[in-house]
Amino acid sequence: MTPAHVEAEKSSRSAAVSRTPFLIPGFRTAAAACGMRYRDRLDLALIVADSPQGATASGVFTKNRFTAAPVTLCRERLEAHRAGAVLVNAGIANACTGEEGLVRAREMTGAAAKALGIDPETVLAASTGVIGMQLQTACVFDAMPRLAEKLSPEGWADTARAIMTTDTVPKMASVKVEIDGKTITVGGIAKGSGMIAPNMATMLAFVCTDAAVEPHVLDYYVKQGAGRSFNAITVDGDTSTNDTLLVLAGGAAGNAVLSDVDSRGSRIFGEALEAVFLDLAKRIVVDGEGATKLIEVVVEEAADPASARTIAFAIANSPLVKTAFFGEDANWGRIVCAAGRSGVALNAETASLFFDDICVFKDGQPLSGPEIEEKASAVFRQKEIRVRLSLGMGGHSFTAYTCDFSFDYVKINASYRS
Amino acid sequence: MTPAHVEAEKSSRSAAVSRTPFLIPGFRTAAAACGMRYRDRLDLALIVADSPQGATASGVFTKNRFTAAPVTLCRERLEAHRAGAVLVNAGIANACTGEEGLVRAREMTGAAAKALGIDPETVLAASTGVIGMQLQTACVFDAMPRLAEKLSPEGWADTARAIMTTDTVPKMASVKVEIDGKTITVGGIAKGSGMIAPNMATMLAFVCTDAAVEPHVLDYYVKQGAGRSFNAITVDGDTSTNDTLLVLAGGAAGNAVLSDVDSRGSRIFGEALEAVFLDLAKRIVVDGEGATKLIEVVVEEAADPASARTIAFAIANSPLVKTAFFGEDANWGRIVCAAGRSGVALNAETASLFFDDICVFKDGQPLSGPEIEEKASAVFRQKEIRVRLSLGMGGHSFTAYTCDFSFDYVKINASYRS
Repeated sequence: MTPAHVEAEKSSRSAAVSRTPFLIPGFRTAAAACGMRYRDRLDLALIVADSPQGATASGVFTKNRFTAAPVTLCRERLEAHRAGAVLVNAGIANACTGEEGLVRAREMTGAAAKALGIDPETVLAASTGVIGMQLQTACVFDAMPRLAEKLSPEGWADTARAIMTTDTVPKMASVKVEIDGKTITVGGIAKGSGMIAPNMATMLAFVCTDAAVEPHVLDYYVKQGAGRSFNAITVDGDTSTNDTLLVLAGGAAGNAVLSDVDSRGSRIFGEALEAVFLDLAKRIVVDGEGATKLIEVVVEEAADPASARTIAFAIANSPLVKTAFFGEDANWGRIVCAAGRSGVALNAETASLFFDDICVFKDGQPLSGPEIEEKASAVFRQKEIRVRLSLGMGGHSFTAYTCDFSFDYVKINASYRS
Repeated sequence: MTPAHVEAEKSSRSAAVSRTPFLIPGFRTAAAACGMRYRDRLDLALIVADSPQGATASGVFTKNRFTAAPVTLCRERLEAHRAGAVLVNAGIANACTGEEGLVRAREMTGAAAKALGIDPETVLAASTGVIGMQLQTACVFDAMPRLAEKLSPEGWADTARAIMTTDTVPKMASVKVEIDGKTITVGGIAKGSGMIAPNMATMLAFVCTDAAVEPHVLDYYVKQGAGRSFNAITVDGDTSTNDTLLVLAGGAAGNAVLSDVDSRGSRIFGEALEAVFLDLAKRIVVDGEGATKLIEVVVEEAADPASARTIAFAIANSPLVKTAFFGEDANWGRIVCAAGRSGVALNAETASLFFDDICVFKDGQPLSGPEIEEKASAVFRQKEIRVRLSLGMGGHSFTAYTCDFSFDYVKINASYRS
């Protein structure tokens, strides 16, 4: 059971999301096994906009100060707000590789541009894998002709698989909406096995749409949507050198170009984008290394948006909170204390805490009794749990998404050798 | 192997620290089993200054916004800079207990004052244990006469044991120094099983000395020393509602009262205090839940002190870094990335990373090769490891202390029921 208004908001956003393979008019994609580091598996992918002038493009990148070469390249090239293709490789991240790393990223995207007959400056790049190693370019050059030849509107399932590292499942999501009588498709793929972390666990997401949209409108909704989805998830608080979200809008749907952020059409488009982002983001959390549960941490009635976000992440990143979820222990104390240590000014007397709709802490003190205890424990046995901390200090809220901390988290990360 | 200057500084500070039972002229202590929550174990302790006017007192407390009642009480009473006694209980933390919690803390300290015949306003309190439950006062009243009767200068080992919760060993440390021809003893006890966390894992430390020292000098060195010791350790980044450090200086050593922060005597006193703090703090880390290694994270050549501290804690709190230590995986990438995500502006081109004195990353790129790899792996097999990140951006440094993240950490915290 969840509060009715939250449930309603949730379903309106996510009702239309499909996780089956999709087509996006105006885009083709393909994957190949180039053998850069993995053997006998897809590890190189190309996403191409059919239109000769490319697609309107936007991106959100890691805030890590050690930025991988492909991120630097994308930031430069996105200043033109256009992209003709995206080249992605898995196995080597091209991070901490100095000037030579940037040279190799340019060579690889140059090879893709040549095979496609497009301007090299419109080819974006993303990499995931081991950091501190240089890309092998010869195998990429070698694979490029057969990759270009394989391009197909139906290639997304292969591409979703090619970008995986420690992921256990490929991640795809798509939504169809109507804008001014035209059907618009937004479809995307993502990788990241939750920990959103430096080695092999980078978060990458590529979302394409046939909507016709001006760059400033696309930028606005990409940024807003990412803040509520990819930037609202955490497995362990670590972020990668390579985290990348790229969004390409090709325009094949033929709608009147979305040029006003506040227009009804733009808002519908923004919601569709966010629904795809959020579905992919949640599945990254659920695929988190060793994760057994998805936990939604809602902080509401905060004095300002930054406070809500800070407290939500203090709870979502707390190893004590996360191990309690793994242990199915309805431990309100750990959650309240994590909020208390966030650095944000709080008023214990107005704070309440809910597990789904079970109030376990009200006005600074726990509600005890076997009935509440039993109900709370039942919530903790669920696979998806909503924790809601109501601060009674204002009207701002933020929702963070996290998973539990299990034996397998330690096992995977203690034994994983970069 | 460690850099000579660091080793020298370390030994001058910590050479004299003894971990065997100690006496502090002018102080007596005792512990009793009052049965508030535990059965048949010491769970209540009293520390008393013999002098009729009490001791000069100072304290450092949790920054958690949900502050336990005894912390509120201590903050109020320490405004007078004097204390006659400290009453400590283990089992119930008296946190999230509202006004009634404060009433009960006053009642308990009142009972101690009555038994000792001193002003109740000079009795400080500390609690550790389950949060959200009210203290049982009847058993405390009942135990008070026999506790007061048992007071002895030799009671510290019992008191160190009485304040334990999930700790596996009691923690005691003392240092003797000469100031102007007088021998000064600083001795302290602490509890905290590393995670420095909300339930039963609060950090408490009580340090007494026979030095004669003015309140402003005591406050200065308590604050400085705590910043480099108790506030430089982390097991999982969580802090408790109850974290408390209390320091009482009785004056029985008969030295000329330390009244100038910059005098030679005050500096010697400050170093002795810090040596005791640091020894207790490191042992809290080593006793961390599931900990197998002590890791010293040195960030040097930072642009300012706050940057050094922020980066050191970003590394020390990273679950990815901590699982790599457990796995004995010399994973430079995770450390560099944790620094990169700290939010502090960094220059990859001037950053270098050392495991003890093995350089594994220089000027933004890894140093590879089987020889470096083997040496770094050997360091990772040690029980104590120093990680040193040199930023090349200025002259400020900070050292944080942490432990690794093991299977047992998850086990203890997933199965522990508050």
